[in-house]
Amino acid sequence: MTAPAVATSVEVRVRYGEADRMGFAYHAHYLDWCDIGRTEHLRRHGVRYRDLEDRGYLLAVAEASLRYLKPAKYDDLVRITSWVTDVGSRRIIFEYRIERVEDGALLANAMTALVSLNPSGRPARLPDDLLSLMRGVAVREV
Amino acid sequence: MTAPAVATSVEVRVRYGEADRMGFAYHAHYLDWCDIGRTEHLRRHGVRYRDLEDRGYLLAVAEASLRYLKPAKYDDLVRITSWVTDVGSRRIIFEYRIERVEDGALLANAMTALVSLNPSGRPARLPDDLLSLMRGVAVREV
Amino acid sequence: MTAPAVATSVEVRVRYGEADRMGFAYHAHYLDWCDIGRTEHLRRHGVRYRDLEDRGYLLAVAEASLRYLKPAKYDDLVRITSWVTDVGSRRIIFEYRIERVEDGALLANAMTALVSLNPSGRPARLPDDLLSLMRGVAVREV
Amino acid sequence: MTAPAVATSVEVRVRYGEADRMGFAYHAHYLDWCDIGRTEHLRRHGVRYRDLEDRGYLLAVAEASLRYLKPAKYDDLVRITSWVTDVGSRRIIFEYRIERVEDGALLANAMTALVSLNPSGRPARLPDDLLSLMRGVAVREV
Repeated sequence: MTAPAVATSVEVRVRYGEADRMGFAYHAHYLDWCDIGRTEHLRRHGVRYRDLEDRGYLLAVAEASLRYLKPAKYDDLVRITSWVTDVGSRRIIFEYRIERVEDGALLANAMTALVSLNPSGRPARLPDDLLSLMRGVAVREV
Repeated sequence: MTAPAVATSVEVRVRYGEADRMGFAYHAHYLDWCDIGRTEHLRRHGVRYRDLEDRGYLLAVAEASLRYLKPAKYDDLVRITSWVTDVGSRRIIFEYRIERVEDGALLANAMTALVSLNPSGRPARLPDDLLSLMRGVAVREV
Repeated sequence: MTAPAVATSVEVRVRYGEADRMGFAYHAHYLDWCDIGRTEHLRRHGVRYRDLEDRGYLLAVAEASLRYLKPAKYDDLVRITSWVTDVGSRRIIFEYRIERVEDGALLANAMTALVSLNPSGRPARLPDDLLSLMRGVAVREV
Repeated sequence: MTAPAVATSVEVRVRYGEADRMGFAYHAHYLDWCDIGRTEHLRRHGVRYRDLEDRGYLLAVAEASLRYLKPAKYDDLVRITSWVTDVGSRRIIFEYRIERVEDGALLANAMTALVSLNPSGRPARLPDDLLSLMRGVAVREV
């Protein structure tokens, strides 16, 4: 699987505190990186997630799955590529590819399903502007 | 799905630094909790994971999937119940149930697949003592 | 320096994700542990910090200092002992002692100064009930 | 206090998982940022910290102190400026200034003292190349 053209890439360096006893990035931090990836994908398409929350919309992670192929090491530069594969009125699916910049090695693939909630935590329809923006960049078949 | 009898439960309280802007536990921390859960499941059955690494065996997370049902809030007491569903010579599957202690609400279900590696990061057979211990407590159908 | 009698102790086990490349707990996590310590000190004296925030009071860390003496290792059980050394109308000083449970070794000493803020982030007087409770348990000379 | 000329600046964006219930960056993460800052300061002067550890030298944080002035908010871009103020044969002092990029507001000042350890955790003399490099960029009076 390769990342589609309508995808956004961002780079992070593995922090000392993110590496575990083995010198490898601890697996939970890949979810932090996916979050960074989708935030930048949204920003590039005109949506600052912070503003969305300030308008009363919340995107909560409802499902996540990750497949770890090779470890990222402390101080490695890692590239996160993020794209949208499905957009419903209350649910968006993001997929991610995580690679080591130095040698291009594929480190992990991931998926998160996000649901739209209102400030009291109930399912809500996504705002129309986000819906149409995300539908415009969704990649249905990868 | 209910947790099987041969499962281990442990409780953690949601830390201030684990809660996000919404006051909910950030989704990546559920993987930290699963790690705590399986570490205690191993300990209860006679295996201290730290000792296993000191003997040159490493269990790396190869796959993880999580389904988030309800949010845990800051300062909630959360119960993680962990059990093994499959044991191969190089791979162990753990499943988890995460509940709020106060009201028993099911917050999340999770699965992680762990693979056995040697210190240089190559796939390796699990040590025999761990294999037989884990086979003794594996719950194949849940 | 020994911890005073009017202090609260709580134990945490060093998590896999908290240990760094050396197998030692990463230094930033000691601040998480201090937070756990003071939260339990408050709870023991009748104040649930979550409720305090829900009432519109916020205690923000304004200063922190830590002296690291010996490293905590992955899977070590660590005891955090917390007490109050000074209480002003807008500011509380907590001190901490962090020890390894197994051998009683002193691992770190720490101090945090907390200031009271209102929800818009401006300095505010602490609520009277908290003030009198904390004055009752403050230990001025240690 | 202003940062001296021989200082290194690096920018990070406050991650969703780094923000707390108030929407402010949790205070412990400032230590992660200082770590990023000093790592880049070393890199800029020819020392990759990962290589130093691979050569058997370890710089452990022995003391840290932080003064928090204004909160960083989720998604803020933050600039960390790092410099060395003192270099002994076994101990280096770094200082830090943390600012919000958008408006230049000073958010925090920090200091960490690092000691040189050998792989078994005993105090050790810093390697000569690091010593002379750091002495060359140390700023004694700020």
